[in-house]
Amino acid sequence: MENSVNRRIVLASRPAGAPAVTNFRLEEQAVPEPAEGEVLLRTRYLSLDPYMRGRMNAGESYADRVELGEVMVGGTVSEVQASRHSDFAVGDLVSAYSGWQDYALSDGVGLMKLDPRISSPSYALGVLGMPGLTAYVGLLDIGEPKAGDTVVLAASTGAVGSVVGQIAKLKGCRVVGIAGAREKCEYAVKELGYDACVSHYDSDMAGQLAQACPDGIDVYFENVGGSSWNAVMPLLNNFARVPICGLIAHYNQTELPPGPDRLSVMQGLILQRSLKIQGFIISNYRHRIPAFIGDMSQWLAAGQIRYREDVVQGLENAPEAFLGLFSGANFGKLVVKVS
Amino acid sequence: MENSVNRRIVLASRPAGAPAVTNFRLEEQAVPEPAEGEVLLRTRYLSLDPYMRGRMNAGESYADRVELGEVMVGGTVSEVQASRHSDFAVGDLVSAYSGWQDYALSDGVGLMKLDPRISSPSYALGVLGMPGLTAYVGLLDIGEPKAGDTVVLAASTGAVGSVVGQIAKLKGCRVVGIAGAREKCEYAVKELGYDACVSHYDSDMAGQLAQACPDGIDVYFENVGGSSWNAVMPLLNNFARVPICGLIAHYNQTELPPGPDRLSVMQGLILQRSLKIQGFIISNYRHRIPAFIGDMSQWLAAGQIRYREDVVQGLENAPEAFLGLFSGANFGKLVVKVS
Repeated sequence: MENSVNRRIVLASRPAGAPAVTNFRLEEQAVPEPAEGEVLLRTRYLSLDPYMRGRMNAGESYADRVELGEVMVGGTVSEVQASRHSDFAVGDLVSAYSGWQDYALSDGVGLMKLDPRISSPSYALGVLGMPGLTAYVGLLDIGEPKAGDTVVLAASTGAVGSVVGQIAKLKGCRVVGIAGAREKCEYAVKELGYDACVSHYDSDMAGQLAQACPDGIDVYFENVGGSSWNAVMPLLNNFARVPICGLIAHYNQTELPPGPDRLSVMQGLILQRSLKIQGFIISNYRHRIPAFIGDMSQWLAAGQIRYREDVVQGLENAPEAFLGLFSGANFGKLVVKVS
Repeated sequence: MENSVNRRIVLASRPAGAPAVTNFRLEEQAVPEPAEGEVLLRTRYLSLDPYMRGRMNAGESYADRVELGEVMVGGTVSEVQASRHSDFAVGDLVSAYSGWQDYALSDGVGLMKLDPRISSPSYALGVLGMPGLTAYVGLLDIGEPKAGDTVVLAASTGAVGSVVGQIAKLKGCRVVGIAGAREKCEYAVKELGYDACVSHYDSDMAGQLAQACPDGIDVYFENVGGSSWNAVMPLLNNFARVPICGLIAHYNQTELPPGPDRLSVMQGLILQRSLKIQGFIISNYRHRIPAFIGDMSQWLAAGQIRYREDVVQGLENAPEAFLGLFSGANFGKLVVKVS
């Protein structure tokens, strides 16, 4: 079904603290026409990810901000609807960065035709896309897990965490997850194969984590921060590695927590236990994509990696679905089926 | 001159906060006799280093604690006074770990005969010993400086810092030091060749550091903590490396500073700027000693590395000299000439 209207969701206002649906506005405009050398893309799937919260801020973030009135950014799986570009034909499926809208023009830069090995197109936004690559690079290149290591990860059933945990199992590690809802913890153990999973809804989460990690923690894959990090810190072994790819628990923070100031505690721990703590942004690891796609396609085909999506129907529902990321409402990789 | 008395300085009590001379006690005992397979060592030089403060604590430290009534630990340059060990002859100079005393027995484990290229024996406690190796490994292996990088270091004229800064200059970096006394800052620039040096005695140290680092900071060699780290944090570039080998500003801390709690600030910075922060303990890098001795001997012989010692006369003055480390009273590597 073609359409003459492009619906787009723009940033209406910047949130102070937790975002709300009123920070977004749905607009309509005419579908644009591709110029020579351009393609018109129709969005099939839109990815919703925690990093987008940072793009809503005026202040410094680890990538560019979205300006007020501009369309929200985001990765998409799109179909070429019209082409005046020699590399792309109508009907091609591509991974793109079209944002929260029905249609977008592209000059082809950054577009990648979907690998024919990808049976479900939306997987290119998850296990075979940016979140999967984040898990792969963060765990393998920075976390450097060895067989027998204990690997802990938070947001255990999410787009990144679920892949981290399953790769760690493939590498022979003991894997302990942290999740919220009881059903997520059960899924992590029964379906993803983790050795244990504790819930941050339990007031005794730190004690349960300690019990689940009798030999301490060798790798903590950090994508949450907050209470997860507090529980992990005392359990870190000498020479533990802590890749940091996200801190979702902090994104809506409007002021620093009260004291005491534990900055020196963290520095002291890094020194006393010879820790390596390293942040990374996945756009700097494009050179790892071929190895990642090769390994991940094999693991998926062999059933060694399982993948769960939380699919929301309709672009108009993207804002509310996005807000759910911060309360853990999604169960699996959150994507919007746009068309 | 031989002697029948072994003077030894033992830990008399554990400090709460800043140590005092009353935490130490000078005792005398008979010089011990070596058994078969042992040597009797006479201490020529004793090294005094910040890490010893941690050994005075009852709590967890990054190495073993000294028990009450036991002799304080420490690296020494010692001379073999009597030998019943086939590898060592009377008169051999060795680097040892005899502690704060005139004489010690050894079964040879951990003893290293001084490299004949070392013209001044006490250098084996500094530029050619543990502090020099700490500088070499921390800067090169963890800091990974590239020509043109800006390297910042605190305790700039100390045993470790002075070597870090000069190696960084040899690698083509811009080097900015942080020191205390004005004469130390001048020495860092005029004698050690740093591009700039700011004083943490100035209330505007952070502003001066920012001015001295117009292109930000690529490597911060951390051996201090406290106000130095506060000034460095906002200036760190993307992909900056922060090796941590010491935190002298924290060692006498008895309680955490008041809030707010900046733990999340530090985590956020690591993520946003893709920082690598890594602690290390030099005893895990013995495999780097041959390369270190080779490079450092050449640099010293060529006059490319300058080295300054602060030599205190007499074992009995070790406690007071040690306390001076925490107020910056020493100027250069602190050693005690024992005999």
